[in-house]
Amino acid sequence: MPAIVLAPDKFKGSLTAAAVADALAEGLRRVWPDADLRARPMADGGDGTLDAVLAGRGEQRTREVVRADGSARPTRYGVLRDARGDIAVLEAASIVGITDPDGMAAPVTGRTTRGMGDLVRALLDEGVRRFMIGLGGSSTNDGGAGLLAALGLRLENASGEEVAATPEGLALLTRVDARALDVRLAESEITVLSDVDNPLNGPAGATAIFGPQKGVPKDAVADIDATLQRFAERAETAVGRCARERPGAGAAGGLGFALMLLGAKLEPGAEVVADLVGLDAALQDADWLITGEGRSDVQTLAGKAPFTAARRAHAAGVPASLVAGAIDADALPLLGKHFAGCFALPDGPLGLMQSMERASALLADRAEQMARLFDAARASG
Amino acid sequence: MPAIVLAPDKFKGSLTAAAVADALAEGLRRVWPDADLRARPMADGGDGTLDAVLAGRGEQRTREVVRADGSARPTRYGVLRDARGDIAVLEAASIVGITDPDGMAAPVTGRTTRGMGDLVRALLDEGVRRFMIGLGGSSTNDGGAGLLAALGLRLENASGEEVAATPEGLALLTRVDARALDVRLAESEITVLSDVDNPLNGPAGATAIFGPQKGVPKDAVADIDATLQRFAERAETAVGRCARERPGAGAAGGLGFALMLLGAKLEPGAEVVADLVGLDAALQDADWLITGEGRSDVQTLAGKAPFTAARRAHAAGVPASLVAGAIDADALPLLGKHFAGCFALPDGPLGLMQSMERASALLADRAEQMARLFDAARASG
Repeated sequence: MPAIVLAPDKFKGSLTAAAVADALAEGLRRVWPDADLRARPMADGGDGTLDAVLAGRGEQRTREVVRADGSARPTRYGVLRDARGDIAVLEAASIVGITDPDGMAAPVTGRTTRGMGDLVRALLDEGVRRFMIGLGGSSTNDGGAGLLAALGLRLENASGEEVAATPEGLALLTRVDARALDVRLAESEITVLSDVDNPLNGPAGATAIFGPQKGVPKDAVADIDATLQRFAERAETAVGRCARERPGAGAAGGLGFALMLLGAKLEPGAEVVADLVGLDAALQDADWLITGEGRSDVQTLAGKAPFTAARRAHAAGVPASLVAGAIDADALPLLGKHFAGCFALPDGPLGLMQSMERASALLADRAEQMARLFDAARASG
Repeated sequence: MPAIVLAPDKFKGSLTAAAVADALAEGLRRVWPDADLRARPMADGGDGTLDAVLAGRGEQRTREVVRADGSARPTRYGVLRDARGDIAVLEAASIVGITDPDGMAAPVTGRTTRGMGDLVRALLDEGVRRFMIGLGGSSTNDGGAGLLAALGLRLENASGEEVAATPEGLALLTRVDARALDVRLAESEITVLSDVDNPLNGPAGATAIFGPQKGVPKDAVADIDATLQRFAERAETAVGRCARERPGAGAAGGLGFALMLLGAKLEPGAEVVADLVGLDAALQDADWLITGEGRSDVQTLAGKAPFTAARRAHAAGVPASLVAGAIDADALPLLGKHFAGCFALPDGPLGLMQSMERASALLADRAEQMARLFDAARASG
């Protein structure tokens, strides 16, 4: 009976990574009832990171914080424990997420990451000094000003009054004061999980690249970008550290910048998650790895979870196959070089909604059929 | 480099079996440039049988005969040669085919298989005494009366006048005279290729089961069935042989009956084609067989070409995998038992027309990905 590692990402909009792993397992058991199946759901720092990291380990907690539009609601975060103590795991997608329509009542110019800062401060109060913060999937473009303001950075207009930590408010910014910044941050260790390399500003910056999909009008990109740049320059001077040009500063609408300004180090999300879920250990003596994601294209090869899973598998001498809801035909020749077979979900002509509704059953069927081929090929080898 | 047998059926409406094999080969060569690829396009007696049987062997000829509606046009047939001489290969689908809208100008009650008989007679004139006749895909429901009439069976009404060899004409039939039946048929060897077990008449007969899809109105089924039964009883008496209750008599609207009345023996189409294309020889020392068809469902297991190909492969100890344009989800558990993996064409949500238009490229991609998995599994075995 083979040992198989199941390390899929979520199928966005239909299944969590853990549910994908369950469906794959169901299909594989039809062929190998006693297979040693090692589920290691993956994520890349965005939506689903918390679920993946907490699967089978750590503790999920809930606390009320404000969302991007300022309304309050209970949000999830995780706490892992190791020899050195607690690590809080936060996910921008859970607090200021773009998949949370209720938290996006305000236009993007009025949205803030203040809730992220509130949660960090509350955790500092509890004695937490290590943070892992997943950055994908945010609806904000405030340069991380909200997080910094919640942690004590004072943002003032020309009259010395505090301005809102939003693009709108920052447009009135004339002075940044870091003297009240929470001193406990200096003794903290913050790891930012991201798969984005963009700087904060300019043509490759947060506003130009990710702003439009968050609702920044095309003709407002330059203004907002300039506003964030002014804010960032002043914040850098006040704090005494440069961050806005570093790769990843543009992640999560500039939340990357704000966290790096606080000394955070940025790590590829999928790599950190792979470590946290113990992927390498699971690959020991494994025969096969199956990964997957909702849609595979050239971006998959830019550090997405399935690519990271395949890389780790190759390093361990284990073949890695991919299952996806859809596979971009133009990207397939490139993808094919990295996977021992890429297979899509549909079992025939099928609409997107049907495919998403039937995702679990289709995943099980696909895994079963891949297993039948794997088994026969192996036996004939 | 592995040796792989490519033995697909056609993908109805998009690709011939040979074109499917070509596309599969293209994909496999991306993984194994020097693979020993053995293309053996398959068919099951219906549409595509001639192409499959003639691929790489035999001679294709053309002759003008009448179609189902009586209009004349050049039609294709094949001639194979072995130690005992010529074998003519005829395909009902090419002469009275349901995929030939031009030949279906008459309603089903006015359609005849006379063209089939004309062609047989012409071949007898040329000295041919061995025939293989594929029965699938006909538009006729004349009990094979047209073929028999063209070969000398006289069909008369109460006044002794000849009636048309159509359901309409047979309704007026009172007497059948076999004295002028072509004597050369007695010294001929006719093999009928069919994957249909139905008798000529009754609830499982040609008219009840296949009539409606040829245009027989529901409320005319009983009358036409009774007409064919009267015709068959008289023809059996005149010829001195029983055939109408034999399995396959109901194939091709009763053409099966007519040919068995002439002494034909019925064989499963896919099995005969497998023999003619030399499938068993190709499987010698092969590592893998890939078969396929446009749509796979429970009918696939009722002697369709992919099932026959898989059966032959199993007998030779070679794993057989299936690629299909679509795979019925309910049938997959059954199909899975007979194939080393069943894979569908689509690479994501896709409409039927797109899937058919892209069939060739999708087939190559699918074969490539299956090969990558096969290769990796084999190497890990």
